[in-house]
Amino acid sequence: MSSELRKDPVIGRWVIIAGERGKRPNPFRNYAATVENGQPCPFCPGHEEMTPPEVMAYRKDGGGPSRWSLRVVPNRFPALRIEGDLDKQGEGLYDKMRGVGAHEVLIETPEHDSDPSRYSAARMTDLIRAYRDRVTDLLRDTRFRFVLVFKNHGAPAGATLSHPHSQIIALPVVPIRIASELAGSGKYYDYRGRCIYCDILSQELSDSRRLVVQNTDFVAYAPYASRFPFEISILPRVHGAFFWDITAAQMESLAEILQDVLRRYRLALKDPPYNYVIHTAPPGHPSPAHYHWQVEVIPKLTEAAGFEWGSGFYINPTPPEEAAAHLRDLHRFMDIPAGHLLTTPPPRHGSA
Amino acid sequence: MSSELRKDPVIGRWVIIAGERGKRPNPFRNYAATVENGQPCPFCPGHEEMTPPEVMAYRKDGGGPSRWSLRVVPNRFPALRIEGDLDKQGEGLYDKMRGVGAHEVLIETPEHDSDPSRYSAARMTDLIRAYRDRVTDLLRDTRFRFVLVFKNHGAPAGATLSHPHSQIIALPVVPIRIASELAGSGKYYDYRGRCIYCDILSQELSDSRRLVVQNTDFVAYAPYASRFPFEISILPRVHGAFFWDITAAQMESLAEILQDVLRRYRLALKDPPYNYVIHTAPPGHPSPAHYHWQVEVIPKLTEAAGFEWGSGFYINPTPPEEAAAHLRDLHRFMDIPAGHLLTTPPPRHGSA
Repeated sequence: MSSELRKDPVIGRWVIIAGERGKRPNPFRNYAATVENGQPCPFCPGHEEMTPPEVMAYRKDGGGPSRWSLRVVPNRFPALRIEGDLDKQGEGLYDKMRGVGAHEVLIETPEHDSDPSRYSAARMTDLIRAYRDRVTDLLRDTRFRFVLVFKNHGAPAGATLSHPHSQIIALPVVPIRIASELAGSGKYYDYRGRCIYCDILSQELSDSRRLVVQNTDFVAYAPYASRFPFEISILPRVHGAFFWDITAAQMESLAEILQDVLRRYRLALKDPPYNYVIHTAPPGHPSPAHYHWQVEVIPKLTEAAGFEWGSGFYINPTPPEEAAAHLRDLHRFMDIPAGHLLTTPPPRHGSA
Repeated sequence: MSSELRKDPVIGRWVIIAGERGKRPNPFRNYAATVENGQPCPFCPGHEEMTPPEVMAYRKDGGGPSRWSLRVVPNRFPALRIEGDLDKQGEGLYDKMRGVGAHEVLIETPEHDSDPSRYSAARMTDLIRAYRDRVTDLLRDTRFRFVLVFKNHGAPAGATLSHPHSQIIALPVVPIRIASELAGSGKYYDYRGRCIYCDILSQELSDSRRLVVQNTDFVAYAPYASRFPFEISILPRVHGAFFWDITAAQMESLAEILQDVLRRYRLALKDPPYNYVIHTAPPGHPSPAHYHWQVEVIPKLTEAAGFEWGSGFYINPTPPEEAAAHLRDLHRFMDIPAGHLLTTPPPRHGSA
């Protein structure tokens, strides 16, 4: 079978049933292309013919095909296909549609052994810009209701290729976590007339125990009800529902703070596997006043005990206040210019 | 800090922030007691003094303290404490309560190297009975709104002790996954006047492509929108909202079918790590007509790529129809009496 989107009839969660991906060398491993040992890396310069034709690239002027600094290609084993209509159907009490969408890999650097905590500021900003550019482009296709941008770093976090890359998945449905956030923040807005994330931001700033780092446009903090040790949310100071409305100044700021967080992870947790995901309202969402886009970062330190999959109930052994204090205190060990990132800078804008 | 329950202010998920568990030898590993290499196993007979005093045990008549066949003890590093009131409080816009609850370990057998796929029918039935007994007992405490029964088998599934054990957590809140199931099935019931799980059961029985195995009282099938390869739901044929109302005959039947499923996993997937979780309506739920208790079983074959934590969006490389066909076909290789478990037996009752 080709891939299908199926909806859980009770809780409404959509799942990609990706029949064709089962034919990969190791079907039970992950979502990026798989490379056998000893094979050349398909993401290294000079191996461009090993990937499907590129969708986008940032190149130096006058550079040849291998002179890129960042490159986006379709996933070699896509979970979704770009062609066709959705063909929504019922199957008894179940709902399904064709697995139409896009699944792209963003090759972040030509350097095989690098990682975001080591990028130049310019490269890190390019990475954020590339996310914005791809999301904007994909959302021109009106079949897509959401674009998921995420990175898996390290094998335990789901990466099967070590060459640094991110992934982008355009979906014809809204993921259930985003739907829950929209519902929850909508309820709060109806009741209080304010964005709940703006309220969280001002409480975190005045409380300060869970703050990790802040800069001109963003605040990174350990969420009050963190599911995982050292989980971090990065919120823009200024209210905005849609990630793709990010300004040029915010792109630089986000690159700076995200990289700072990843450097703190590397120092505190010895280069842990981690994931980050961009949360945004879906395109055309009718009430952008109540949602606030953000980046969620999770180091993968614990085995995910399976009862959490079944119950949605989490046990976190590290209080977020302790995680934040630990990460804050690392500042003096970091190889960044003193005063470059401050834990209490003057905000460029009010706290929204 | 002692442990706390904290609520995510946007989506309403409760998390245990278990401060004291961070003091264990390896705080980033899991939820059962941790044993250093070379130490004697605290769950083996003769080592009863290594665990906290037992809560319950099944013993042969006239047997001494080490002559138990099944034993329940408090977790040595409990995520929740049994003493105290809930002390519900706000903290700005956040909600929290004291980490009051129970966290027990159910030692399933005296045999260190066994596992449920190898138990006798009597032991497997005792295991189900012990779940029922502990849940019934814990729910006498009116502070508890839910009891979570689950098993982690194998280190990648979160078990840190290899001696076979299950876990039981009594909670003062309802886990969000159960709350979503109650909401979803309630909506369906309001609209159609029927239990959605009863409807799923009859559709799965007539369709048959996703059926794995059935017996007198239960049906095991691969869910239509499975998140994971070889995920299985075990549903009682007769409608019932509360697991603890299980009859003696159903206990035998559930033991039989659950063990059958775990044997199929062992054969098909080479003794994979797995988890199972019992889903039930919470005690005193006002509309038991729309919820249907069940057991969810998930082998841990894939790395959980982190974007799933962030999005609730899953990619499953194995269609449930293929998983079910594969597991069904194993019957002829299984070391159980022919005809003992049938894939299409006459049901004891109608399909509810």
